[in-house]
Amino acid sequence: MASAQPLFLRACRGEPTERRPLWLMRQAGRYLPEYREVRAQISFLDLCKHPELACEVTLQPIRRFGFDAAILFSDILVPVEAMGCPVVFPDPGGPMLPQPVRVPADIERLRVPDPAAEMPFVLEALRRVRAALAPATALIGFAGAPVTLASYMVEGGSSKNFTLLKGLLHGAPAAARLLLGKLADTVALYLAAQVEAGAQAVQLFDTWAGMLAPDDYSEFALPYTAQIVSALRARSVPVIVYVNGGGTLLERVARTGCDVVGLDWRIDIAEARARLGPERPVQGNLDPCVLLSTPEVVARKARTIGAAAGARGHIFNLGHGVLPETPLASVEALVEAVRDLP
Amino acid sequence: MASAQPLFLRACRGEPTERRPLWLMRQAGRYLPEYREVRAQISFLDLCKHPELACEVTLQPIRRFGFDAAILFSDILVPVEAMGCPVVFPDPGGPMLPQPVRVPADIERLRVPDPAAEMPFVLEALRRVRAALAPATALIGFAGAPVTLASYMVEGGSSKNFTLLKGLLHGAPAAARLLLGKLADTVALYLAAQVEAGAQAVQLFDTWAGMLAPDDYSEFALPYTAQIVSALRARSVPVIVYVNGGGTLLERVARTGCDVVGLDWRIDIAEARARLGPERPVQGNLDPCVLLSTPEVVARKARTIGAAAGARGHIFNLGHGVLPETPLASVEALVEAVRDLP
Repeated sequence: MASAQPLFLRACRGEPTERRPLWLMRQAGRYLPEYREVRAQISFLDLCKHPELACEVTLQPIRRFGFDAAILFSDILVPVEAMGCPVVFPDPGGPMLPQPVRVPADIERLRVPDPAAEMPFVLEALRRVRAALAPATALIGFAGAPVTLASYMVEGGSSKNFTLLKGLLHGAPAAARLLLGKLADTVALYLAAQVEAGAQAVQLFDTWAGMLAPDDYSEFALPYTAQIVSALRARSVPVIVYVNGGGTLLERVARTGCDVVGLDWRIDIAEARARLGPERPVQGNLDPCVLLSTPEVVARKARTIGAAAGARGHIFNLGHGVLPETPLASVEALVEAVRDLP
Repeated sequence: MASAQPLFLRACRGEPTERRPLWLMRQAGRYLPEYREVRAQISFLDLCKHPELACEVTLQPIRRFGFDAAILFSDILVPVEAMGCPVVFPDPGGPMLPQPVRVPADIERLRVPDPAAEMPFVLEALRRVRAALAPATALIGFAGAPVTLASYMVEGGSSKNFTLLKGLLHGAPAAARLLLGKLADTVALYLAAQVEAGAQAVQLFDTWAGMLAPDDYSEFALPYTAQIVSALRARSVPVIVYVNGGGTLLERVARTGCDVVGLDWRIDIAEARARLGPERPVQGNLDPCVLLSTPEVVARKARTIGAAAGARGHIFNLGHGVLPETPLASVEALVEAVRDLP
């Protein structure tokens, strides 16, 4: 039975695999000409809400590169909007939240949305993708982790120093916990619905938790992520937790109970594995900027990471999302180099 | 003799001290009303080049808080300008370098400046500060580390992903080495001149090296920082190397030969000490955002760090520069809490 499962899922479970699985964070995106073609017709947020087109762009990198997993094209802020906190995506520019959440009354007003009723387009896109994918290609669902979502909601967008978020964590910890608890409930329901709709694994993106001091991670990130992981346990899908800038937090990330620790490029993958132990699969961790150099450099760096990671329990990925200016030839070189890894 | 030395210097050497020394990165800055008063009259760069006023703002935080070390008010890009790469400081906004260094010819044109001839204002300011300081207060000189300075020169300012810098490192490593070598020569001469002018310790700020993959840190940062540390060895002044975001690089930072490893706030200080060994003094590492909360929270977090670090070989500091919006009451609470540490 186990060998009939997609390669990616077997690697997530730490089983031996015939080769190293590969996918790329933000693999459906602007570096692909076919994606830019779709986006010329439709805004980013409208694309997230259009199941047919979201399915199409999710499949584009699979068709072109044969990655071992597809990840739904969507945005981590979709459930934030459904909670009652509007989000806009200026183009160009990062997301903006014109009604930030700053005082307890703002937090009390937030809903825990029913995914089927308020984010049906996500579930419909997942069903379409799953129906279209070959059985050997896994489908990954995803969500933002609570403290990362909270950072957008409190700061009103991206931030340099996260002074407002940290002001809430340190100055009004009870209010912060109420917010983080609602986010954990929301994400747990949202990911469970994604699994029902066809996601075979899920990844939590904790894009900004790496900006927290470790004690603050332990207090304001770990328990909420752990709650989500625990809620998904009964669904028997692997959970990947990726903390950008989380190299100093690895042991804490593992304590969330996740199946796979996603690594950014700022940690030596052999050191990460030594700290986490051989039984904990890892995912990562090529610096996305390496893809801006030559195919030779890409292949060499990929081989170095492959050797340092070891074959078992390693899912090859970048350490962060593909950059829009990435040449296709670099991705081709990466696919080839990873295919040849022992 | 040793006990006649300033507390800060003894702590840098790992000697037992009667209490924990304290200073703050960017302690001379916009959070001080007396600094804002000076800056109302003069631009940032002109202030750096005005020895009398630079001395005055260097002394301001010492007068107000009695910190154990003064650090010269200046900017890491002063020697970059002296190398022949102009720098402007828009207000507000980060530094801009209108003639970025991108091709080998740009790099070949750069000079290794004579500090006495081309940056005399820095040395004059140091002499004035040393003459004005009480003997118990140490004077710290500083410079940017080569790869951080290179990032500004190549990117033309601050950057999000450092794609141009990394493009140079991976795509044209020989040119990158020429640039980094010139920067190392420049910084070594510059810091030696600062020591001649009265600096009793020096800190290398590697603000952006934490964005490098560890292998790239080993190849493009470590050797050049090590060259500077080695060139200063004969001067018998402690060298602190601070790598922002360097929590995954600590062992490599120690291999530069530095006396003290500066820590940002994203690593548990007890873990850092365990990794570096008890004989390696460390400096840090309170999250500067904590100072935006209440004096009670500041005192509690300072005590936690003090206990985790241990008394010997710990210089208390923030994990990054003081934020401009920091209330004075928080700094007062920090001073008091650190004074009471065992």
